[in-house]
Parts: sequence; structure tokens; C-alpha cells
Amino acid sequence: MISSFSNRQVKQVIALGRSKERSRSLLFVAEGSRMVAETPPQLVEALYFSESFSEKKESALIVEKLSAGRSLEPVLVSDAVFAKMSDTVHPQGVIAVVRQPSHALSDILDSAAGEKNSALLVLENVQDPGNIGTMLRTAEAAGVKGVLLSEGCADLFNPKIIRSTMGAIYRVPFAFYKDPAALEEAFAKRGIVSMAACLDGSDIYTEADYSGAVAILIGNEGNGLLPDTIKRAGRRVRIPMEGKTESLNAAVSAALLIYEAKRRQGR
Amino acid sequence: MISSFSNRQVKQVIALGRSKERSRSLLFVAEGSRMVAETPPQLVEALYFSESFSEKKESALIVEKLSAGRSLEPVLVSDAVFAKMSDTVHPQGVIAVVRQPSHALSDILDSAAGEKNSALLVLENVQDPGNIGTMLRTAEAAGVKGVLLSEGCADLFNPKIIRSTMGAIYRVPFAFYKDPAALEEAFAKRGIVSMAACLDGSDIYTEADYSGAVAILIGNEGNGLLPDTIKRAGRRVRIPMEGKTESLNAAVSAALLIYEAKRRQGR
Repeated sequence: MISSFSNRQVKQVIALGRSKERSRSLLFVAEGSRMVAETPPQLVEALYFSESFSEKKESALIVEKLSAGRSLEPVLVSDAVFAKMSDTVHPQGVIAVVRQPSHALSDILDSAAGEKNSALLVLENVQDPGNIGTMLRTAEAAGVKGVLLSEGCADLFNPKIIRSTMGAIYRVPFAFYKDPAALEEAFAKRGIVSMAACLDGSDIYTEADYSGAVAILIGNEGNGLLPDTIKRAGRRVRIPMEGKTESLNAAVSAALLIYEAKRRQGR
Repeated sequence: MISSFSNRQVKQVIALGRSKERSRSLLFVAEGSRMVAETPPQLVEALYFSESFSEKKESALIVEKLSAGRSLEPVLVSDAVFAKMSDTVHPQGVIAVVRQPSHALSDILDSAAGEKNSALLVLENVQDPGNIGTMLRTAEAAGVKGVLLSEGCADLFNPKIIRSTMGAIYRVPFAFYKDPAALEEAFAKRGIVSMAACLDGSDIYTEADYSGAVAILIGNEGNGLLPDTIKRAGRRVRIPMEGKTESLNAAVSAALLIYEAKRRQGR
């Protein structure tokens, strides 16, 4: 059992709390029994149990689920050291080091364009980890073909995002993009129509046209989409608001639009 | 200028970080220039500026906005002491101590029942402060007549909730209730139809009947609504989900349902 704070493996898990280290290693940390149990076995690099957790029945179930035809030995860690490895205030006692799933942007675009009716969700400079996680979770439920994130978004492999995806990170294809103009060109080439969510959009979202393959564009929490992104988009849609609300939460806007696409496309 | 950590006013603001003290005093803390500027002047008990903030133009605008026919003298606080009073990591330098707005439950029910078409939002044991704040904000935008919170919800005057309401706390009527059975009776007496959001609801939300006055019931993040609440409700609605998602985020479910009510009621 590891009981030293300076253990190499302990240090690796702690280092993965930093975005830079995650980008370098292409690994991330999944924490909690639910998230860890949802991890595809082939992505798991290492499994850590706190001493207390290893005594629970649940721990055997997790090992069984993640072994899948190979032997996966959980590493035991003293409760005190585990608390340091954990990102949460009340650690459940189970952590997995996981290889980042990766999807090619062009594959996602092709799969969306290949359907009669489909939707993509595009996040431009979305900053709140909870929002991004919730959007991935909602995207899965609404049957979105993929989520595309601009480089200015919060790091997708941030532990708070991972937790709030509730496992959708393993099931919804996602990819990153650099240049919004190039993305719009890639949409156009495939006949995907981009729909920018904006406060002064000309079409009310319940009346807009969602036929074919559409990409719903959601912008930053404070500033919305970049003016050029709005200009380039195929359509501009707005969600009507009463009262003095200046805007809706980004995850709420995304949910209303991707569920509207699902409904109107008869999916 | 206050520069002592043991100053009585400083201690009061810090004490208001605790739910118990907020319940006792019926006060809460609004922080940040946007939230403070949105506060109805008659509710403001005291206004605090950090030394740095008091030197900004913005500070004069806030004083002007909140004075409204009476003299309101902001209390100056040294930056170091202000940091202790603040609930945030990067304080903006402006805090108001505010009297809790209060609305009678029966008034909210009567106002909903008095309209040809209307919606209420009912939160049962919702725990996440960010979710509750987002739901108040969405409720205002969707023209909901009021938000009713069970006693098991997180404390509405928690600083994180206040922030995430984006000022909707001052504009959307809200009230608390103890007994869900008594609430259902109060609905029935006024012809308000309760609609429970649940995973196995018999009606898909896009096909349910929203005519008249409806109350949308949203449950706890992990466990949903209590079984008895679901049983008692007039209708049970579900939001279709693809993939392996077990549930949607509570604020996302609430948004889909209250915006559906708005649309179907032609509001």
C-alpha cells in the first residue's frame, strides 16, 4: 500500500490536475465510483483505491468491470495520501488514470453530413466547466452527432467537467477546432447549416428551419458568439425572453436548441 | 475607513455567509457591481466598497442608483479587510447587505390561477446552488409566475445562488413550502394542474397538455421527485433521452419544461 506523499504514481495523479500535464501526457483523471465504472476498460491506464474503499464490496465490482479480459490490479493508497490525490472535498476513494478518447474532426463532420437529419453542437470559448460538462451530457441525451470545442474553451479534461458529463465524455464524439472560419467552410463543403444562437437572431428558435444537417453554435457565457462567427453562420436564431433577463445560461440555451433540433428533425 | 477585521459591520457581513444567520436576520449579501446595481434600493440595508473600488467611476453610479431619494453612504473598507468579507476569490470590491424579499405562497398561487394560461416552477429538494440560481434566471425568461421551493432545497440566499440568478432573485416571486401534500391540495383548490418531471412519465413533454394553470415539479439532482409527489401529481411527463444518459441536469429539465409551457400556452 502506498502511504508516501512523494510516491511517483501519487505525484503523477496530482500533476494531472494541471491542464498542461494533461495535454502533454494525453491522460486525465476520472474520480468516483460511478465515473470510474463508466470508463471503457481499454482506456484505463491505472486504478487507485483508498484503503477504506478497497474494503467495500463495490471495489470488487469495479475491478471486475474494468478488467475485461486482462488483469487490472488496483493500487492501494492510504486514506491520507488518497485525499491529496483527490480533486474533491469528500473523496469516494476511487480514481482511474485514463487515456483521453480522441476523434477526428472530419469523421464527426462526415457522420453528421451522412445522415438525412442530424445535429452537431459547437462551443465557442465556453469557460464554465459545469456548463461544458452539462452540455456534453445533454448532447448525448438529445442524440447529437458530436460536440466541437474551440481552443478558447475550458480544458475538456478538467476534473469538474469530467464529473459533470456523468460519463457522456466516453460516449459523445468530440473534437477541437482552431479556426472558426475554416470550420464554417468545412460545414459548407458538406452541406451542414450552422445556426448561431444570439440575442438578436432573426428567427425565433421554435420557428427556424432545422432540416438536413445542422450545427448549433453556442458562445461564451458573458459575451456570446464572436461577431464574425454570427455573421458567417447560415442562420441566426434567438430564444425569446421575458422580464429583464439579459441572457440565458449557456447550457440552458444549448439544451433548448439541440432538443428543438431533435424534435423538428423527428429523431 | 474600516481597516479592522474585528469591526462589528465586517463581522456581520462574514456571519451572513452562514445559512443560520441569514434565517435569523432575514438579510443576505449581494456581491459584485452587477448584482448590487440590480438590487431594489428599498431593500438595501448597507453598502460596502473596498478602497480600490471606491476610486472607480462605477462606484459613484452604484451609489446614485441605490440612493433613490434617500441618502445612502457607502462604507469604505480596506482591501485586505474587504477580501475577508467577500465570498469570491477575486472580489470586485462592492457588497450590499440586503433584506430578503418575501412573497406569500397564497399570493403566488392566486396570481397563477388568475391567468388563463400560466406556469409555476416547483423545486423539491434541489441541492446544487448553481442549478437553483440558473432555474430562477430561466424562470424569469420563460415568464413563470413564481418559483416554489421545498424546505429541503439549498438555502436560496446562499451567495452562489444569488450570483447565478443574475438578479432574477429580485424579479421572480418565490416562496417556500413545507408539506408537498398540502401544496398539491392548494393547487387542486385553485385548478392548478401539477406536472411531475420523471424518467418514466407517461406523457412525452412535447405532447403533454399545458392548458390552464400548470405547476412544473422538478426533483433532487440524484433522486428526482419523491415517489409520493409523483403519485399525487396531476400529470407525469418525461423528456426523451438517447444514449446511456440516466438523467438530464435538473436546470436543463426545468428549462425544457417551462419553455415548453410558454410555447404551448402561446405566451
